[in-house]
Amino acid sequence: MRSQIPKDPTKAPGAPTTPVGARSEFAKAARAPTGAIAGSAFTPLQDLSGTITPADLHFEVNHGGVPAIDPTRHTLLVHGFVRRPLIFTLADLRRFPQIVRVCAIECAGNGSLAWAGGPFGKPDPGLTPQQVSGMTGNTEWTGVPLRVLLAEAGLSNQAKWMLAEGGDSCLFARSIPVEKAMDDALVAWAQNGEPLRPSQGYPFRLVLPGWEGSTNVKWLRRLELGAQPWMTRWETATYTDPLKDGTARQFSFVMDAKSIITTPAYPETITPGWRQISGLAWSGRGKIARVEVSADAGATWHDAALQGPVLSQAHVRFTTTWRWDGSETTLLSRATDETGYLQPTRTQLIQARGIGTLYHYNPIYGWRVMPNGRVFFRGDT
Amino acid sequence: MRSQIPKDPTKAPGAPTTPVGARSEFAKAARAPTGAIAGSAFTPLQDLSGTITPADLHFEVNHGGVPAIDPTRHTLLVHGFVRRPLIFTLADLRRFPQIVRVCAIECAGNGSLAWAGGPFGKPDPGLTPQQVSGMTGNTEWTGVPLRVLLAEAGLSNQAKWMLAEGGDSCLFARSIPVEKAMDDALVAWAQNGEPLRPSQGYPFRLVLPGWEGSTNVKWLRRLELGAQPWMTRWETATYTDPLKDGTARQFSFVMDAKSIITTPAYPETITPGWRQISGLAWSGRGKIARVEVSADAGATWHDAALQGPVLSQAHVRFTTTWRWDGSETTLLSRATDETGYLQPTRTQLIQARGIGTLYHYNPIYGWRVMPNGRVFFRGDT
Repeated sequence: MRSQIPKDPTKAPGAPTTPVGARSEFAKAARAPTGAIAGSAFTPLQDLSGTITPADLHFEVNHGGVPAIDPTRHTLLVHGFVRRPLIFTLADLRRFPQIVRVCAIECAGNGSLAWAGGPFGKPDPGLTPQQVSGMTGNTEWTGVPLRVLLAEAGLSNQAKWMLAEGGDSCLFARSIPVEKAMDDALVAWAQNGEPLRPSQGYPFRLVLPGWEGSTNVKWLRRLELGAQPWMTRWETATYTDPLKDGTARQFSFVMDAKSIITTPAYPETITPGWRQISGLAWSGRGKIARVEVSADAGATWHDAALQGPVLSQAHVRFTTTWRWDGSETTLLSRATDETGYLQPTRTQLIQARGIGTLYHYNPIYGWRVMPNGRVFFRGDT
Repeated sequence: MRSQIPKDPTKAPGAPTTPVGARSEFAKAARAPTGAIAGSAFTPLQDLSGTITPADLHFEVNHGGVPAIDPTRHTLLVHGFVRRPLIFTLADLRRFPQIVRVCAIECAGNGSLAWAGGPFGKPDPGLTPQQVSGMTGNTEWTGVPLRVLLAEAGLSNQAKWMLAEGGDSCLFARSIPVEKAMDDALVAWAQNGEPLRPSQGYPFRLVLPGWEGSTNVKWLRRLELGAQPWMTRWETATYTDPLKDGTARQFSFVMDAKSIITTPAYPETITPGWRQISGLAWSGRGKIARVEVSADAGATWHDAALQGPVLSQAHVRFTTTWRWDGSETTLLSRATDETGYLQPTRTQLIQARGIGTLYHYNPIYGWRVMPNGRVFFRGDT
């Protein structure tokens, strides 16, 4: 393809328009698929600017593969502790009042490759932003508020929990408190304007703003209302956090504030002079209030600019101007959300929770800049 | 592909993850390419929800085809009435402070297929939202404010106009007043987070929020500052509006307020009962303040809900709940922007400007609903 690039493109006829506009051969952002039927693919954060994640680059984690679903044969059953069990088709869902909102979805395990001291050992300095923090994406969702559907069905007074079950080959399922279901939960059929892609839950999925990704159940086919959580495999064997006192934290739904510098970062090589430091910050608890950047390994911090509008439970792009003088240093970022929560250091995180869990790992991350301009990951903040 | 859909997807292993997530075989939104080297492709508005347009579905109009550009050989020259002529590479541009903003880009000719009385004759009732109004798209852009680059070059006092020239085979070029260049113009390298696609101007383009699409010059390679407009072919032979008094309106840059119901619309067939009316509204002059919908051919109007945040010069999704009783009617929408401008009827538009131009055609559009549920376009408001 590159051999077809004319020396002077203004002297060659251009290409005609096409049904969909392809990416440039020189800028083919892509995810990094791992595994097979139980597998994942991480958002290529180092290739992205702004805040919106293209739908085909949004991370995914699947426990039973991506099912091939005919939307005319797929339905959503709402039953259990309701006055009137109901079945909805995609067409039915679209008859109800809908809302549009941008929010991030982040896997509880985001950051596990950067988790020194855990089963993966000391973090590799050759980790990219995609590998360090690519299990998050930020998109615009359109769907029906779940509370509207639950009002149609009529919640009984005993309904305290809701099982959300997907239509994949493992029938992935999570227990959700009814308070969240009645608050800001969405049954979404569109992402960034277009119908959900199969890997994102086509024809519709649950979206629980600010809550760990696995609760945003894809290929949603069943909502059962009950009095207690179901203790599914995915909230007992996984997505539960062993703590240092021997107990475990379960149903740790809300994602804490996090930030990552996406440039400069590994594998970039930079040159001295003025440049931008740019990254992403987000919090499951609301809006990001502040992102601070340090260009001297934490000795001093200053506020980065936040690109508005700053939306609740969504990625915000932060930027700041920096002049690199050619000497070795470490760049750090730390986010504060509107509740006043400040992103911790790795040391603080281990003091609070021990080293027994890979989930909800949100320490300050660093990038070490070498005198030759090479940039490496630092997880030991 | 559809034959591979299992009867019960929960009983078959799902597919592994992939570098990019493909669209469902059941929901393949696509543009409708026309022409060859000088051609266009319209955004499929009837297939989209929300406000974000996927980059590969964003409309395009090209006058010299889509050039194949190697970003390492592409530069931006800033010269003419400046104190210091400069050349920027993509890497140079990314060193400057950047901003992120969502805005719409709309071709001045959007609506020309719906223009009854013009050269296309009476509008076809079999027009889709894509055909009626698909020369608009709404995406998140990241780039450097043009004023930052012009400050580097140093504008001379005589600089009143700027020529923006693209690197395509026709060297497409438009003259822009310096006031706009110094206000909110962007040189953008990313759309919806990812690098621009070739059809959208890779490696960088001009973005002039609220101004007619052709001024948002793609594959930008040259900015020349001067005292007067250049009177290029594309601001004389085209993109100029003949008026009914025999004069012509030139440099009619700002796009007026517009709205369109995207569902129900042709070619849908609807059934009686409660459903959503949903559409898009936007204005080049600022924020949309209000969208009214009529379900009785204009006899009565009521306010639709606007899905927030409502952003300046960007698409906003409006929705309202409607119960169709099965009788024939016409659905209409009309937008008011924050300046108080109300979208006109076709009759008002012709009274003001005559029938000599295909540009800046923004009347109230209608959809006629037949007793059998079929929906047809109505351009005769």
